[in-house]
Amino acid sequence: MSNQFAPDYIRAIAPYQAGKPVSEVAREFGIDPEKIIKLASNENPLGMPESAKQAVQNALKDTGRYPDANGFELKKVISERYSVPQDWITLGNGSNDIIDLAGRTFVQKGQSIIFSEYSFLVYALVAKAIGAKGIQVPSVNFGHDLPAMLNAITENTRLIFIANPNNPTGTFLNPDDIDAFLAKVPSNIVVVIDEAYNEYLDSAIQYDSVEWVKKYPNLLVSRTFSKAYGLAGLRVGFGLAQPELTDLLNRIRQPFNVNTLAQAAAVAALNDKAFLEKSARINADGYRFLTESFREMGLEYVPSHGNFVLVKVGEDDGAGSRINLELLKKGIIVRPVNAYGLPKWLRISIGLPEENQAFVRALKEILA
Amino acid sequence: MSNQFAPDYIRAIAPYQAGKPVSEVAREFGIDPEKIIKLASNENPLGMPESAKQAVQNALKDTGRYPDANGFELKKVISERYSVPQDWITLGNGSNDIIDLAGRTFVQKGQSIIFSEYSFLVYALVAKAIGAKGIQVPSVNFGHDLPAMLNAITENTRLIFIANPNNPTGTFLNPDDIDAFLAKVPSNIVVVIDEAYNEYLDSAIQYDSVEWVKKYPNLLVSRTFSKAYGLAGLRVGFGLAQPELTDLLNRIRQPFNVNTLAQAAAVAALNDKAFLEKSARINADGYRFLTESFREMGLEYVPSHGNFVLVKVGEDDGAGSRINLELLKKGIIVRPVNAYGLPKWLRISIGLPEENQAFVRALKEILA
Repeated sequence: MSNQFAPDYIRAIAPYQAGKPVSEVAREFGIDPEKIIKLASNENPLGMPESAKQAVQNALKDTGRYPDANGFELKKVISERYSVPQDWITLGNGSNDIIDLAGRTFVQKGQSIIFSEYSFLVYALVAKAIGAKGIQVPSVNFGHDLPAMLNAITENTRLIFIANPNNPTGTFLNPDDIDAFLAKVPSNIVVVIDEAYNEYLDSAIQYDSVEWVKKYPNLLVSRTFSKAYGLAGLRVGFGLAQPELTDLLNRIRQPFNVNTLAQAAAVAALNDKAFLEKSARINADGYRFLTESFREMGLEYVPSHGNFVLVKVGEDDGAGSRINLELLKKGIIVRPVNAYGLPKWLRISIGLPEENQAFVRALKEILA
Repeated sequence: MSNQFAPDYIRAIAPYQAGKPVSEVAREFGIDPEKIIKLASNENPLGMPESAKQAVQNALKDTGRYPDANGFELKKVISERYSVPQDWITLGNGSNDIIDLAGRTFVQKGQSIIFSEYSFLVYALVAKAIGAKGIQVPSVNFGHDLPAMLNAITENTRLIFIANPNNPTGTFLNPDDIDAFLAKVPSNIVVVIDEAYNEYLDSAIQYDSVEWVKKYPNLLVSRTFSKAYGLAGLRVGFGLAQPELTDLLNRIRQPFNVNTLAQAAAVAALNDKAFLEKSARINADGYRFLTESFREMGLEYVPSHGNFVLVKVGEDDGAGSRINLELLKKGIIVRPVNAYGLPKWLRISIGLPEENQAFVRALKEILA
């Protein structure tokens, strides 16, 4: 009888293990939840912007009605901000939804999806969920090896995921290299550039991926409101692509995938430049503090362009789990990255100054 | 070049046409949006309960963080209300998400999904989105023909959708008939009973589908907070099934599919019995008023157990579209059901007393 309900590729998926929520750590380790510091999910430590909270209040009167399936107001501000027509925009329940839609829209069972080693786990999951073959290309220096990814393309490759900056390593791809890569990818293979951490890029290295969207009909750029915009709890992301791809994505998008309050909050957040600037500043300061501390402690880390740092906490394969447990006992939640094949490392989200300090203090005590 | 990106079954899907939002009707017909009456999407005319608004306010402080991927608090209240363990519950971004997940979890390309004529359009869409074969079984008296649905099962059938009450017709299946049907469906085929309108059932005909969930390992019951609970804008639904099905659904569920504010609002709404009772009462009164008016006007309607009534507004196949347009000109939005193969009919959501009265007045003027 057992397990006859689903295809083999669904049954092969390991049940999802969510990150440890604050409440669970509080129960498990007997710690006051108010004192727990969470540096585990690359959220904005400033929380949701006040402008977005106000927008949610204002939108509450309409929440008995279905959301706007076309997201008119939100698409309007995205369209203005990125200078693209509204029919180039796909709204997602977080950019996870865009990534998921891309897999289901462009790939069928048996075809292949290419992504890099040490990149976002969801890419591999998307492949598994449709019975596609996930081709993981070995990383170079914790980042994407674009020439190797080109070489990995086979006749049945339909989709390639690139993350820039990459999560969980924070590596950054030179825009010229991405452009050269896009020019070489066969035009019938869709490329997704996942730019979840784009807003944290230093202005000196910011680049304009919308120009590529205009140039390459097979390109989809995804963005999220979950990181720098501080709306992780609301689930809003979007994809930018030419109308042909956008239309295809929208054929299987659940029409009410982004809820009313999330749409309203995202409109406000996108217009709140002061909040974004403050978020980037706090992040840059925190990055400096954390990496200086790691150097001082003699710990190897991967230079990061996101709101997190990958740090090597030991030389044996039990190090990540061991140090993670010791941190949990002290009420600090970070992210073990064993599932990424990085058992000696931990990923630390950059928090508020006092959170970063508490983390460094705890880590020093543990390693002493 | 054109359209080479997606499989043929994706390219064959007609782009989704959302219902007309109030703002669009206001622009198109030059009507003050405040005066427009929307009886088109089976929403609760009372809007969102105050208890849920308060819960959203309280949850706003946490929205910079990701939602609880396991929905602990919400599953706890659902578990208590329905007397099932938490690992029998799958949370969805509306019950649309549960229906969508069921298709993708249990069915692959080329296999078949059975549903009834005149039932929720999303069932057919789910089949199309995965390249499955949708088998639409002719309706009897606007409802499901369960014996014919049994006969329609083939070797590669993997999933059957039953809606009770059915949308857009409002028909109700006798619980004994459903039980007999479930007993005859081969045990490797998953049955989804979509109970989006369950909370509107008269207490005299309420039934306990959870008993069937306990009895049939191949049964998934879906529920929503979008109708009687007044949370359409927030997107929350859930599925109840034994752990084997539930585990499979959760393997491809996006971990953060239900946002933080939606989870909080649903907890409050589920505990707000007074609101649910008021909603049912207003609906029963509105149903009586609308159907009496239809009888008075000599219009045929389908007796309904939901928060809507299907009414025949003419004898020719242009009647539904024609009367719909006249209603729009008067600022009243109802739902044409041409896409369901019911071009002589309109589906009217039951509104507040004054909304129902305004609709009947307008319809009388138009038909006069």
